[in-house]
Amino acid sequence: MPAPDLSAVTAALTSQRIETPSWAYGNSGTRFKVFAQPGVPRTPEEKLDDAARVHEHTGVAPVVALHIPWDRVPDYAALAAHARDVGVRVGTINANVFQDDDYKLGSVTHPEPAVRRKALDHLLECVDIMDATGSRDLKLWFADGTNYPGQDDLRSRQDRLAEALSAVYARLGPEQRMLLEYKLFEPAFYATDVPDWGTAYAHCLKLGPRAQVVVDTGHHAPGTNIEFIVATLLREGRLGGFDFNSRFYADDDLMAGAADPFQLFRLMYEVVRGGGFGPQTAFMLDQCHNIEPKIPAIIRSVMNVQEATAKALLVDPAALAAAQTSGDVLGANAVLMDAYNTDVRPLLATVREGLGIDPDPMAAYARSGWAERITAERADGQQAGWGA
Amino acid sequence: MPAPDLSAVTAALTSQRIETPSWAYGNSGTRFKVFAQPGVPRTPEEKLDDAARVHEHTGVAPVVALHIPWDRVPDYAALAAHARDVGVRVGTINANVFQDDDYKLGSVTHPEPAVRRKALDHLLECVDIMDATGSRDLKLWFADGTNYPGQDDLRSRQDRLAEALSAVYARLGPEQRMLLEYKLFEPAFYATDVPDWGTAYAHCLKLGPRAQVVVDTGHHAPGTNIEFIVATLLREGRLGGFDFNSRFYADDDLMAGAADPFQLFRLMYEVVRGGGFGPQTAFMLDQCHNIEPKIPAIIRSVMNVQEATAKALLVDPAALAAAQTSGDVLGANAVLMDAYNTDVRPLLATVREGLGIDPDPMAAYARSGWAERITAERADGQQAGWGA
Amino acid sequence: MPAPDLSAVTAALTSQRIETPSWAYGNSGTRFKVFAQPGVPRTPEEKLDDAARVHEHTGVAPVVALHIPWDRVPDYAALAAHARDVGVRVGTINANVFQDDDYKLGSVTHPEPAVRRKALDHLLECVDIMDATGSRDLKLWFADGTNYPGQDDLRSRQDRLAEALSAVYARLGPEQRMLLEYKLFEPAFYATDVPDWGTAYAHCLKLGPRAQVVVDTGHHAPGTNIEFIVATLLREGRLGGFDFNSRFYADDDLMAGAADPFQLFRLMYEVVRGGGFGPQTAFMLDQCHNIEPKIPAIIRSVMNVQEATAKALLVDPAALAAAQTSGDVLGANAVLMDAYNTDVRPLLATVREGLGIDPDPMAAYARSGWAERITAERADGQQAGWGA
Amino acid sequence: MPAPDLSAVTAALTSQRIETPSWAYGNSGTRFKVFAQPGVPRTPEEKLDDAARVHEHTGVAPVVALHIPWDRVPDYAALAAHARDVGVRVGTINANVFQDDDYKLGSVTHPEPAVRRKALDHLLECVDIMDATGSRDLKLWFADGTNYPGQDDLRSRQDRLAEALSAVYARLGPEQRMLLEYKLFEPAFYATDVPDWGTAYAHCLKLGPRAQVVVDTGHHAPGTNIEFIVATLLREGRLGGFDFNSRFYADDDLMAGAADPFQLFRLMYEVVRGGGFGPQTAFMLDQCHNIEPKIPAIIRSVMNVQEATAKALLVDPAALAAAQTSGDVLGANAVLMDAYNTDVRPLLATVREGLGIDPDPMAAYARSGWAERITAERADGQQAGWGA
Repeated sequence: MPAPDLSAVTAALTSQRIETPSWAYGNSGTRFKVFAQPGVPRTPEEKLDDAARVHEHTGVAPVVALHIPWDRVPDYAALAAHARDVGVRVGTINANVFQDDDYKLGSVTHPEPAVRRKALDHLLECVDIMDATGSRDLKLWFADGTNYPGQDDLRSRQDRLAEALSAVYARLGPEQRMLLEYKLFEPAFYATDVPDWGTAYAHCLKLGPRAQVVVDTGHHAPGTNIEFIVATLLREGRLGGFDFNSRFYADDDLMAGAADPFQLFRLMYEVVRGGGFGPQTAFMLDQCHNIEPKIPAIIRSVMNVQEATAKALLVDPAALAAAQTSGDVLGANAVLMDAYNTDVRPLLATVREGLGIDPDPMAAYARSGWAERITAERADGQQAGWGA
Repeated sequence: MPAPDLSAVTAALTSQRIETPSWAYGNSGTRFKVFAQPGVPRTPEEKLDDAARVHEHTGVAPVVALHIPWDRVPDYAALAAHARDVGVRVGTINANVFQDDDYKLGSVTHPEPAVRRKALDHLLECVDIMDATGSRDLKLWFADGTNYPGQDDLRSRQDRLAEALSAVYARLGPEQRMLLEYKLFEPAFYATDVPDWGTAYAHCLKLGPRAQVVVDTGHHAPGTNIEFIVATLLREGRLGGFDFNSRFYADDDLMAGAADPFQLFRLMYEVVRGGGFGPQTAFMLDQCHNIEPKIPAIIRSVMNVQEATAKALLVDPAALAAAQTSGDVLGANAVLMDAYNTDVRPLLATVREGLGIDPDPMAAYARSGWAERITAERADGQQAGWGA
Repeated sequence: MPAPDLSAVTAALTSQRIETPSWAYGNSGTRFKVFAQPGVPRTPEEKLDDAARVHEHTGVAPVVALHIPWDRVPDYAALAAHARDVGVRVGTINANVFQDDDYKLGSVTHPEPAVRRKALDHLLECVDIMDATGSRDLKLWFADGTNYPGQDDLRSRQDRLAEALSAVYARLGPEQRMLLEYKLFEPAFYATDVPDWGTAYAHCLKLGPRAQVVVDTGHHAPGTNIEFIVATLLREGRLGGFDFNSRFYADDDLMAGAADPFQLFRLMYEVVRGGGFGPQTAFMLDQCHNIEPKIPAIIRSVMNVQEATAKALLVDPAALAAAQTSGDVLGANAVLMDAYNTDVRPLLATVREGLGIDPDPMAAYARSGWAERITAERADGQQAGWGA
Repeated sequence: MPAPDLSAVTAALTSQRIETPSWAYGNSGTRFKVFAQPGVPRTPEEKLDDAARVHEHTGVAPVVALHIPWDRVPDYAALAAHARDVGVRVGTINANVFQDDDYKLGSVTHPEPAVRRKALDHLLECVDIMDATGSRDLKLWFADGTNYPGQDDLRSRQDRLAEALSAVYARLGPEQRMLLEYKLFEPAFYATDVPDWGTAYAHCLKLGPRAQVVVDTGHHAPGTNIEFIVATLLREGRLGGFDFNSRFYADDDLMAGAADPFQLFRLMYEVVRGGGFGPQTAFMLDQCHNIEPKIPAIIRSVMNVQEATAKALLVDPAALAAAQTSGDVLGANAVLMDAYNTDVRPLLATVREGLGIDPDPMAAYARSGWAERITAERADGQQAGWGA
């Protein structure tokens, strides 16, 4: 293989698609406090309006993930039309079976059949919404788990989970996929029912090829090598997508690339190397902007993912393979580090110019007056947020 | 030293005092959801009523910590009188400078002087409340910190913190103490301003002898040896007290002793060995009962601390010292394990009989009808909770 | 189900089989220092002699795992006969492809085919040894991995690993099994080729039913819920066995049950609940006794596993299921804790009396004179150890 | 403050001094295997010869730390003269009280007075060596600790430690310093006697101003914010220096900057911001090159530290302070990230040209023929290594 061709890199960066989550435009916080921000959307439509600004200034974020019931509307086709009107489209549908009082001890894994049925009905409703919006992917994250040893039977909960997943999978259309997310802990503090990629993978295997694992970069134990998981899932044909965010401690949900940009680069390198760079992989953000303004934080996150991608694309595969094959530890590492140490901001400026947008998205957004406008226009009403 | 004298152990267990926190009687949850429970208190007085039940059935929990402003009342002397009327007394005052919108970027460490002044005023108000309630200890936990590298200047924040602590310390009466709590992370996700015992200790040193460190058992990095910290703080004369709870992952705030009862035992052993078992050390619970009923969870936690204490008191100091001095690794470990492996429930039943209470506190509470009564009586009104 | 029947518990404990590892009788240490101990075996036969003492005093440790080449002998049938002569038998064969200079960059995953071939030949030799000794299980732990990002291609290493495993699996006899072990890190410090149960499981799935995962209790990231993995592997029919040891930090290899006895109990509970308590699961110790005398440390470890097992067997399944089904969080937890808090040492004394051995194995070994005898007899020659 | 002045940055980088450790030139490994490398030094003098090559090609590494007894020689003045002859000088003296059989249960904290005395004598001998070599700093890292709860008395060990430190401090000359190192764990696996910065700091406080804490970047629990510790120690006037290396898991001792270059940058930023960039802070490497060739690995590590330093120096303090003061979270973070995202390799090439050396140290070393020469010349004799 030849050294990376800059025009191919530019083309790849131009074609990249990053999905932003509707909920990141609303208020969020910790268990201690949700700090409200001025101009926050009050409706799903206003979230799409904000998402359209992110796409306008980055050129690579035309898809918006929804979260049901946070984005529940009477007419999903109309919501999808609104999205198109403002220049974006509806992407992944995220189910939520963790905020009803019934779900205190679980949803699809709850010991009571009636609660499980209620949860399953919600999941099936989400597929209905996918049909209405034209969404390809159903993303399932379960808060299910237990807080105390003995609280419930770990194995029976797996049986119940498998039953629900199977029913949902059977309901999917032929072009629709199920993305199963895992998470080490939180809100469950003893045992989480899908705590790691292995559990998600084992369930997907039994369901079929359109059941895929989604990797949230904040959902692992300390020390976990996430890019290894990415490489492994790609090798197994089971990487459905990402929830990008970053963390120093637990599931901190900081801006992607903010805590460990080198890790994000390594991860994107494995995506590229494993053939995962393309529309078959959903590159989603899943973040909370608790203290920083939301739209610019999302723009910045998109840019961080772009920079990691650009560096990953700049790795010279031939030089790398040569060093690896000859056992040249320092040489192989140096090939990777050369790409990482490159300042790719000029390259991305060129990409943006090719897209007809300002090479400096943060400055362009700041100049646009959008922040002032929404602060003024959205002064009344109920701000959207987790739980709203 | 002779082997432990059972009557001395019994006397020690009879004299033990465990402080329960008013907020654990109210609703709590994670950032994802707060599940409401039936019968939850609506007022500080009702929290004291519930706390009185815990003391009634355990005999060792006569002190209740308050949290300001969650327990703000017009007349603190009246609140203290209510406590006495129901058989308990007001203990530690906990300040809260993390739930106003002003505190989004910090309280006493905030870059703006006006916010710092507001936070300091609250801390000083807490000392006024201590004067009114006769409380000995002011517990300070700061949510202050930053989420992103560069967000604020780490060192300037320490300077601001020192200034506030100094002002509060100067305001304390001669019998009052400041207990400074540290926490690794949450809600700050990059840098916390008092992240570890070393930072708390360094500040206390500069303040004076009545500034002491409080150890929350859930506030450490994975792998931290907490009993070492206990032993070290006792050696330095700076252990003010504990916030007991337990964790598998982060600051999970599960019932004390639920996740790692062996750790709780080791910690209580160091307390006993270091001369910290007595009224000079505040043994407080600080927990969240998100999914389990609150009063029995607190009773159970008190019992777990008692069991760990009983085992710690049963360690044979002479046998241990002999094995340690002779380098007998297995023998010394066995002395500790012999105590830990002892079933101390019969011993604690005897202690309870000596206190004139039922040997089985959980069963006695269940039989008492209190749960049914508060469920009926507290059906209306606003339940107390974090933020309420 | 009725409450646990004490005679059934006694019978189960009497039938329990714990396998001790030959290498734990030899010297071991950290990268900083190996402290030699008096009386350490100089030959595989002497290791078996020591293992026979552990069985003599515990009654439940009749099987000894070997490690090749540390236990390489000219005549394995003779070694197996020696084992029988002293009252034990040869168990699992452990391959070692990490101590030749050729393996600096890997063994079966090495970039060079010649090194991979050499490693594979060793694995096949181990199956020959199994044939000669009548061993059922081949345990494979690979130190393979990389220290630096980019050093080698993560995915190609998986391809090479799969190829080697497939060749070994094809060589196994119909009654022989392959136990694949995973480990988070060490000695590789960036990416380990089998870092987690998911990777081991995915490989086993492709090989066949006699490829099973082995869980070393010290090989996980901080916060990992190991009993969840046990429950999951049992549900998938892929739990081959355990390497027991304990840890506070990394792969500390301390005595089983020494660091977190509650965890060991929870794990054994899942074994019992999931139908894994029986000869189909290999219950092995894998420990390093760096500073404590080896034979008594192994006796103590066997006893710790027995105590955890006894407590697990004492859990009342009917009471637990009732509480779980009704969503009684505290009640269900209490059922588990009641068993854990029981002092099972008297019960195990009874089991030992039933086996015709001293109820106090540690004291019996101390009295036996074996330590003095081997110290005197084994004064000359080369002590066995890691690398010897 | 104005934006960074490039000539000042260049001057600072030109004046930077990085100390390399003699032991990194010798063989090292894990507890599983030490892989020997061709050309490894056989004597302290040959280690200095290799270190001189690192300085020759980087221009900023003229100081070499010694480790006693690994670098024990009959005539230390002669060794220091040899260092000068080859273009470097002897730096920090590292004591070693962990590789004698006597130290199995500790050195200065050992329960037996005779062992403590022996360890203290060694520490005092190290000060004698400092006198002979003109070294400023004595670095103390103690492997002391316990593997099992109860094994020894945690508090008594602190008392013994304090006694030894006090004796050593009293022996120091007026220009000499004691650098006390802390480490979370390894080789002790339950409690380490100096496990964290707080413990080291507390001891230093009692000794005097020339007792300072040294931060080894690999010696912390997962999630620890190391730059916070740096900022705090600088604020307290107690940062003596660094042991640089990097890690993904435990104390992996990989090349500095290899695992988390962003962390190394943040740490160097706090050094610069806190006034720690100067000769009063010892910037040392402490690494193990287990699988990669040692001299180029050390050159690469020096370069990585230089790159992190260059980026830290490029942070615009005025822009940062303005954003911080105004609570502009994203803006302040962006100022830091702008510096981090800069490709500083051209700047460092300029610095090297100013020093009269090749702008590409790795290539220059590769061309120099030194590797081939030492491989040929050092074929016989005993290679140096840990324990050699």
